[in-house]
Amino acid sequence: MERIDLVPGTDFKIIQDKSSFSYGTDAIFLSNFSKPKGIVVDLGTGSGIIPLRIANNSRVEKIYGIEIQEEVSKRAKRSIELNNLEKRIEILNMDLKDLPKRFSKCEIDTVVSNPPYLKTGGAIVNEKENFAISRHEIQCNLEDIIRISDYLLKPLGKLFLVHRPDRLTDIFYLLRTHKLEPKWIRFVYPKLGKAPNLVLIEAVKSGNKELRFFKPLIVYNEDGTYTDEIYEIYDRK
Amino acid sequence: MERIDLVPGTDFKIIQDKSSFSYGTDAIFLSNFSKPKGIVVDLGTGSGIIPLRIANNSRVEKIYGIEIQEEVSKRAKRSIELNNLEKRIEILNMDLKDLPKRFSKCEIDTVVSNPPYLKTGGAIVNEKENFAISRHEIQCNLEDIIRISDYLLKPLGKLFLVHRPDRLTDIFYLLRTHKLEPKWIRFVYPKLGKAPNLVLIEAVKSGNKELRFFKPLIVYNEDGTYTDEIYEIYDRK
Repeated sequence: MERIDLVPGTDFKIIQDKSSFSYGTDAIFLSNFSKPKGIVVDLGTGSGIIPLRIANNSRVEKIYGIEIQEEVSKRAKRSIELNNLEKRIEILNMDLKDLPKRFSKCEIDTVVSNPPYLKTGGAIVNEKENFAISRHEIQCNLEDIIRISDYLLKPLGKLFLVHRPDRLTDIFYLLRTHKLEPKWIRFVYPKLGKAPNLVLIEAVKSGNKELRFFKPLIVYNEDGTYTDEIYEIYDRK
Repeated sequence: MERIDLVPGTDFKIIQDKSSFSYGTDAIFLSNFSKPKGIVVDLGTGSGIIPLRIANNSRVEKIYGIEIQEEVSKRAKRSIELNNLEKRIEILNMDLKDLPKRFSKCEIDTVVSNPPYLKTGGAIVNEKENFAISRHEIQCNLEDIIRISDYLLKPLGKLFLVHRPDRLTDIFYLLRTHKLEPKWIRFVYPKLGKAPNLVLIEAVKSGNKELRFFKPLIVYNEDGTYTDEIYEIYDRK
């Protein structure tokens, strides 16, 4: 069952299917955190939410949304057509590991990715296949994402990533191994006084080795209402 | 000019010299964060503040405080004598890179370290030599600390480290390279809504690859007074 929603902070529309994976706050936080410019690649674009969120950015020339699941990529493509954005956004239904067949090395200015977070080790997950592919590292793992980002990006090109804080050692280790140096980091805390549940990272290809921290992003006030910054992130055009 | 202070949270006394490097809040936070047991080595013990802070811990058998600066180590030794703790704490005036001459591989249960934070690159720092050695990576760098911790620790032995957040990529990359897996992390924030200025890390030798986060440690309230947790950390015996 499909429905049409408004893309937060824009006048664009997005088609989502209730039986499929819907975009989450993480995609909204990532598109807010990112500073995309030039040619942009979104690895694992899903519904196309991130390309739609950044399509109005005047520094962005073109956005490629990569999605391995055919049904999901078709729906994203229809969302792009619904907004007449075919010239700015192109959805590519392919495995991101095959991107070297489509793009030359060092051709891309910005990579964004909201990848599957969960390791596949242990019991096979009891969920629908398209949920599982969007949530678990089945079709690609973190190192695939980082390796292909390294391939795609120009020197000093930027990768913007959202992930789970419990994978931070993996993330930093793999980024440095692939010469993508973490530059800025922001933790998302559900509430004050809790542990963070998301992390936003900006890495620069062959960048300097100095990490800088943004102030924490807090989602809920003590009384369970959203903080002012969350409203800003959702409303900002 | 020497003076005698009380070691926070204990009845022990510590000798400090105004013209030398005094212990900071970072050493207090680290000794509070650490869960030392068995045979403990403190790499770069300085005034001996960390051994004195944990000397009363019943799970600790013996503490070795390693200090390369002769004058500083002598003062630490006099502090140990002043408290009649010679049987529990031994100060070793040596370069930590020479510790393999003194300890066998995998002999130690717990390593703690509040190392120099600052990289030495660029202009030589205009400060007194003992300040510079305590603050800058002159006599040892982060990799030396991590390499020797790996040498000293038993399998599943623990390293507790305090450092600057801007070195977090270096820390995680070097820890994993040396098979010390980050297990727990806690950021110290000067105030709510600011970036963190210290990070506390527990790494486990050959431990599982999963990082967990403590809630943030906030130092100051909005009105500039210390938070309740800071009072607890300083008072707890």
